[in-house]
Amino acid sequence: MDENVTTCWFDPLFRTEAMRRVFSDRARLQGILEFEAALSRALAAIGVISPVSAEAIASQCRAEFFDIRTLSERSAGAGNSAIPVIHELERLVAKRSEQAARYVHFGATSQDAMDTGLVLQMREALALIDEDFAKLSDDLVRLTDEYKETVIVGRTWLQQAAPTTFGLKVAGWLSALLRHRERIKELRPRCLALQLGGPVGTLAAYGDRADKVVFLVAQDLQLALPDLPWHAHRDRLVEVAMALGLVVGTLGKMARDVALLCQSEIAEVAEPDAPGRGGSSSMPQKQNPVGCAVVLAAATRVPPLVSIMLAAMPQEHERGLGGWQAEWETLPEIFGLTAGALAQMQHIIAGLTVKADRMRANIDASGGWLYAEAVSAALAQRIGRTAAHLLVERACRRAVEVSRGLREVISDDPEIVSILSPAEINDLFDLQRHASTAGRLVEKVLATSASPFPKGS
Amino acid sequence: MDENVTTCWFDPLFRTEAMRRVFSDRARLQGILEFEAALSRALAAIGVISPVSAEAIASQCRAEFFDIRTLSERSAGAGNSAIPVIHELERLVAKRSEQAARYVHFGATSQDAMDTGLVLQMREALALIDEDFAKLSDDLVRLTDEYKETVIVGRTWLQQAAPTTFGLKVAGWLSALLRHRERIKELRPRCLALQLGGPVGTLAAYGDRADKVVFLVAQDLQLALPDLPWHAHRDRLVEVAMALGLVVGTLGKMARDVALLCQSEIAEVAEPDAPGRGGSSSMPQKQNPVGCAVVLAAATRVPPLVSIMLAAMPQEHERGLGGWQAEWETLPEIFGLTAGALAQMQHIIAGLTVKADRMRANIDASGGWLYAEAVSAALAQRIGRTAAHLLVERACRRAVEVSRGLREVISDDPEIVSILSPAEINDLFDLQRHASTAGRLVEKVLATSASPFPKGS
Amino acid sequence: MDENVTTCWFDPLFRTEAMRRVFSDRARLQGILEFEAALSRALAAIGVISPVSAEAIASQCRAEFFDIRTLSERSAGAGNSAIPVIHELERLVAKRSEQAARYVHFGATSQDAMDTGLVLQMREALALIDEDFAKLSDDLVRLTDEYKETVIVGRTWLQQAAPTTFGLKVAGWLSALLRHRERIKELRPRCLALQLGGPVGTLAAYGDRADKVVFLVAQDLQLALPDLPWHAHRDRLVEVAMALGLVVGTLGKMARDVALLCQSEIAEVAEPDAPGRGGSSSMPQKQNPVGCAVVLAAATRVPPLVSIMLAAMPQEHERGLGGWQAEWETLPEIFGLTAGALAQMQHIIAGLTVKADRMRANIDASGGWLYAEAVSAALAQRIGRTAAHLLVERACRRAVEVSRGLREVISDDPEIVSILSPAEINDLFDLQRHASTAGRLVEKVLATSASPFPKGS
Amino acid sequence: MDENVTTCWFDPLFRTEAMRRVFSDRARLQGILEFEAALSRALAAIGVISPVSAEAIASQCRAEFFDIRTLSERSAGAGNSAIPVIHELERLVAKRSEQAARYVHFGATSQDAMDTGLVLQMREALALIDEDFAKLSDDLVRLTDEYKETVIVGRTWLQQAAPTTFGLKVAGWLSALLRHRERIKELRPRCLALQLGGPVGTLAAYGDRADKVVFLVAQDLQLALPDLPWHAHRDRLVEVAMALGLVVGTLGKMARDVALLCQSEIAEVAEPDAPGRGGSSSMPQKQNPVGCAVVLAAATRVPPLVSIMLAAMPQEHERGLGGWQAEWETLPEIFGLTAGALAQMQHIIAGLTVKADRMRANIDASGGWLYAEAVSAALAQRIGRTAAHLLVERACRRAVEVSRGLREVISDDPEIVSILSPAEINDLFDLQRHASTAGRLVEKVLATSASPFPKGS
Repeated sequence: MDENVTTCWFDPLFRTEAMRRVFSDRARLQGILEFEAALSRALAAIGVISPVSAEAIASQCRAEFFDIRTLSERSAGAGNSAIPVIHELERLVAKRSEQAARYVHFGATSQDAMDTGLVLQMREALALIDEDFAKLSDDLVRLTDEYKETVIVGRTWLQQAAPTTFGLKVAGWLSALLRHRERIKELRPRCLALQLGGPVGTLAAYGDRADKVVFLVAQDLQLALPDLPWHAHRDRLVEVAMALGLVVGTLGKMARDVALLCQSEIAEVAEPDAPGRGGSSSMPQKQNPVGCAVVLAAATRVPPLVSIMLAAMPQEHERGLGGWQAEWETLPEIFGLTAGALAQMQHIIAGLTVKADRMRANIDASGGWLYAEAVSAALAQRIGRTAAHLLVERACRRAVEVSRGLREVISDDPEIVSILSPAEINDLFDLQRHASTAGRLVEKVLATSASPFPKGS
Repeated sequence: MDENVTTCWFDPLFRTEAMRRVFSDRARLQGILEFEAALSRALAAIGVISPVSAEAIASQCRAEFFDIRTLSERSAGAGNSAIPVIHELERLVAKRSEQAARYVHFGATSQDAMDTGLVLQMREALALIDEDFAKLSDDLVRLTDEYKETVIVGRTWLQQAAPTTFGLKVAGWLSALLRHRERIKELRPRCLALQLGGPVGTLAAYGDRADKVVFLVAQDLQLALPDLPWHAHRDRLVEVAMALGLVVGTLGKMARDVALLCQSEIAEVAEPDAPGRGGSSSMPQKQNPVGCAVVLAAATRVPPLVSIMLAAMPQEHERGLGGWQAEWETLPEIFGLTAGALAQMQHIIAGLTVKADRMRANIDASGGWLYAEAVSAALAQRIGRTAAHLLVERACRRAVEVSRGLREVISDDPEIVSILSPAEINDLFDLQRHASTAGRLVEKVLATSASPFPKGS
Repeated sequence: MDENVTTCWFDPLFRTEAMRRVFSDRARLQGILEFEAALSRALAAIGVISPVSAEAIASQCRAEFFDIRTLSERSAGAGNSAIPVIHELERLVAKRSEQAARYVHFGATSQDAMDTGLVLQMREALALIDEDFAKLSDDLVRLTDEYKETVIVGRTWLQQAAPTTFGLKVAGWLSALLRHRERIKELRPRCLALQLGGPVGTLAAYGDRADKVVFLVAQDLQLALPDLPWHAHRDRLVEVAMALGLVVGTLGKMARDVALLCQSEIAEVAEPDAPGRGGSSSMPQKQNPVGCAVVLAAATRVPPLVSIMLAAMPQEHERGLGGWQAEWETLPEIFGLTAGALAQMQHIIAGLTVKADRMRANIDASGGWLYAEAVSAALAQRIGRTAAHLLVERACRRAVEVSRGLREVISDDPEIVSILSPAEINDLFDLQRHASTAGRLVEKVLATSASPFPKGS
Repeated sequence: MDENVTTCWFDPLFRTEAMRRVFSDRARLQGILEFEAALSRALAAIGVISPVSAEAIASQCRAEFFDIRTLSERSAGAGNSAIPVIHELERLVAKRSEQAARYVHFGATSQDAMDTGLVLQMREALALIDEDFAKLSDDLVRLTDEYKETVIVGRTWLQQAAPTTFGLKVAGWLSALLRHRERIKELRPRCLALQLGGPVGTLAAYGDRADKVVFLVAQDLQLALPDLPWHAHRDRLVEVAMALGLVVGTLGKMARDVALLCQSEIAEVAEPDAPGRGGSSSMPQKQNPVGCAVVLAAATRVPPLVSIMLAAMPQEHERGLGGWQAEWETLPEIFGLTAGALAQMQHIIAGLTVKADRMRANIDASGGWLYAEAVSAALAQRIGRTAAHLLVERACRRAVEVSRGLREVISDDPEIVSILSPAEINDLFDLQRHASTAGRLVEKVLATSASPFPKGS
């Protein structure tokens, strides 16, 4: 790593090593080479070249035979990454067979190799995402189940609102993630498709065997067979980027919730502790929610990155000028940040400290305000919503003025007690009532999450 | 329309009237009221209120009974649009039945009404999009079929590259649109879901009848039944926004292609002519591609609007502070611009002037360069790709120097003619060969497009 | 207001009436007409037309003579807003003088009228922003001064960190706003410039009097005289959009801080109370920070809107296709949301409830952890930063374990007391010490803010 | 460079080596260390530590003493890059002086070191930008001057409109760049400011010597002295990002123009030719405008990156959670892409092939339509704009129908010749007339550009 020109410092913080590997320079190169190898085998299958020639080509399609730094420099002149790779591959093949070298990349164009190589990388990357999803989902199922009746303050507009349970909160996260898995499952057969079109997408060099070549290459690489070459239509790539954007959005929501619950004054959960993690250079007592910060940073960065992919779609004619090039680093960056955010969230959830007693204490400290909605709803059935609302609002204000709990004030309010019996009031302030409603809701999500998502599905 | 404060000037240019209707203030109000009406019927069905009360409520759920300007002003204080609507609804219902008025909005919260109302608007809006899609697809099928073997210069990096057909170009547009229709079909059952959760999403007020209430309201409104209230998880809305973003991306690609083909120097197609359309205040000869400009403007504006929806996802706890509010005008704006772009593109395609002779003339004017790839590919099979590339590159340079066509230069090149026979050269410069390959590809898309997409599917 | 097609519902929440007026349809029209009037006077001044003709033109340049709905519909065909206005203006002028009507818009092009009209609107809009800035700054100066030594928990990473003062916090907001005023002051002479170039920017129709015409129109409209027509170079408009983006970013930071301080569990400040403001449809006790929500929504929406302006810059040749059109609604929207956010923040700050006792209580409730950094820094001078850090970290952990205050634990820690004397420890836990450092910093900002920013400067 | 995990492939294409150096990991580290060294010298100057201790610290502040990979890994746990650097610096200093080691980073916090280090990097980066600006401006001045009267088709909405000169087109680019230089000059004293505030921005550890410390460190590093620590107010950084965004916007406009002029069918300019540059893997005749593609890719990517910086501004309290972290890689990325785009454009302009004969040929091929506006303007003075417009529009249509030049048709049009004399018509079709108006405009810009912009100003 040449520290004088590279900027990898934050990689371990913001990205996972596994995902960096999938979108590394080496993997990019190998992706292009996989395409060329599969193409050579297809050409052999239709009799354009001999099996020996195909083997001569395919045998050289190994990234370790190439010098990436040289390829990178030549790409700067060529304007794309495939041209120097193909030249070098020809050179390598020619050493073994002049005849075979003549058919390297035959009938294809640079973008075919680059796009298909990218699709191969995406397939691997989505498998990684899926694995991490599975782990995170498992942990969320566990948390949901464990805390399904653990009461916590429900907060709206950052104000205490009414009781809910921590399990229901977690179930909300889980439910969103399950939808993301479904989306990714749906897009795979549509988006993980071969690109092979030749110079302008007519497959002209293959003549009437074009269909066959495309079929064979797709089959070889186990990619979907598109109805048309799609080099100038980027919706497949953008759809993948958008699915990741959604994932990061949900992770950001989780991180926002966790970070707010971690606040010193609330302290209902804590990120897992580890030596050297989340410390401060000046404050010994600090335990910063570093994981949440990373996820929230991703949730700030990824939406505009997704918009780059969308904005790059209007690509000119049969190959774009600017739009295509804008994708090259953007899509891998989206994958990297998504994987990083996912890993951080998985780490947070796997080791989350949940302080049920503190959750309960914060409810109790609210002086009963959390039950105002329940009282109001009960009164509404007798005297109408507006009148009920006003009665309870007045009681709330009085509770503040006289520094008493809402329950006491309400129990002393002649107007209210003329409507609600002591038993009813008792019931309204029964926390368990709230917990059990939430608990029932949670069960549905747990049932859904049990349905099988086989790996790579 | 109060011209002193509104800015509707560009509405007819950028949006359709039908879509503006779906997201008008009146429709927003009616959406909220539909929710309240359905809720009252559900409450009657489970016996919380009488059928008469339900009818008293539902009968007032008509937008024309409300003064929107007043509601709008009160919303500024309340911070959301539902609160003033509910207060007013109560007032109206109370005139008919004090008893019924007590159960208006019972157990629900503002966001339930706003979100569900929005989903109802989205359902209608997606139906509009689908109708316009159907019309546009039909026209594209027609164009594809008509011009499937009409040769045109294939252009990459804005340079002439190799021949293709106009039909194949159109088929590429069509194919992308068909994928969008598929995406929208897939997201409907996932995204068009009821939101009903009560203050913090626990449905507490309904106790053990919560499931039943939610089921009945969803059934009444014919919306999908979600596993959980989703008020704090916005992925469904964002997914819809993203699908529209993809649509606009493809429309932008089409507009880019058309606008480039409309250039005075190329002039292979023209937007439909109409009195007063695309003129200039200073240049009488101008026929500006106004439709393309509108579509490209949408393709510039929508991607960042989509990123707003994504960026707004990390909403705090049980109701967000800022993120939720950021959606309110953004999602309708995305729908409006998408519908506008779609309508413009439909107008362009329906009346597109296609100048096949000019397409042919531009091919001929290229001096045969367009066939360079084919010659190179043919030579490559005998002498290898690099050697072939160099031979043809040399011939191209020579053609420029001596101002002759590439075919003549090649036919005079002793090295080349020692490899390729006159018949072979003849074949390589046969435009029909290119046309027929493209024609075959087009057939596949036409076959796909024939599959039925029933309305609203 | 036709509620069936317009969406003005949230205007009173998200925008100010004054700013809506500046960017209303009527004001847009009047902007175009101002340009035409000034042009006619310039043409008279150089003798192309008579003063009587100029007056005939100028006298009709009044928005109330035009039907905006008709203009709007014609704009949809024409592709821009100026063409129908000019046609109608000619018609009106011709009623008074056929001769004068011939010189309406003479030598100019639509974009000249639209761009210059927009610049006139921007000038007025920036004056509004400046007025609101002035009011907000005044209130912030007052708050800064009043609370400069009022201690509050300093929070980093959403964790309690060390003491600061509320005045210093406010001074940070104020200081940022003062920089924004400076930026806006700097950009005025650069950005508020006349656009007049004729069809392709050569001013051809004016021949060798072109300089004179441009000078006169600029002088008439009191706009800066640019070195060149800038129709195809949009940096001036984008710069204004970006300055507003910065303003909204700072307002968002203020809203984030205020909203977090408003949390039920922290409750150190509160948004001003008002009847019907920030209530809930279901929870009578709620007092939602509606103003902060609006500002945070703006801070979510404006950055991508600014990126639209930037992304639209690469406009083709002498007039863009898509990019120019993308600006038309975007720039006014940025102004509207900025004004709305500014007004909300001004309202919040003007009536902010500051609970100094609660700030103090939260410090005291922290069990002394807030002083950990000070103790650590003091120890560091004797035993090194790392050793000190470890000693204090250990004390913090112990304080939690034994549920005692940090001060007590430290005073009992033999190792620490062997290094720090009781007087020193006393001093470190002296809150006033922290308050006075912050107080000194605040004075600098107050001094700066006293420097005069004359209106419209 | 570990190709298995890094993605540097496109660095030589999209970024300059010089800029990569400025934002390399090593430079980031050195920036932090410069801060620590300056702080130690300031501490010595106010007598907190001895000059010997300061020297012991400063002598270790050299990036080559540190292992960046280790620091990077530790940053992942610590959550920021400064903490592990400071720990390691202490360790190194302690080897030389235990006493000195105690005062490493004294009174400061991580963000102080990171922010100030970043400002130092930005200063260097802006100097690089300025150098490239100067070179590009010089070339543009040369081109402007050389081609100031070289006629070219003026194109609006991608349609031929009226004649202009290539020099005026270039002058427009130049004029925008000069404004950018002015903006960057203005922001330097505001944005290149020291950040030093301690844990929460109160500078508490320095007591009443805080002012002095801050002054000394700023002086030492030759940075502006801010009125307040600005750690939680990021407008300075965002302003820099936005200025770069504007630069890229103008470069994108230039690239769009050049790329359109490079089209095979227009061919009025060409990017500089070089072996291996802009070739195709399949088409030997291709000379792709690679430079323009790179610049347009940057113009697609940078606007959303700028919006990330804006969106990250609302950072929580005294140190943000997510927003701050979102900046870390984004700002360097903006610098990198800007520098890359600038270098590409400089390369394009320095070696641009300008084909004046082809520009003239395209004017002539337009059949005189380009003069329609001039004829119309001339007629307007006699018969009114609308009547003139209609006459010329009719002539244009007739010219197409009968395949004659507009001049001939007009000279034969009885109505027109009854208004305009042959001499007048002759004059209107005089290309030189258009050239000379443009030429006069150009002179103004050339005069402006001659004003001195001393390096680093």
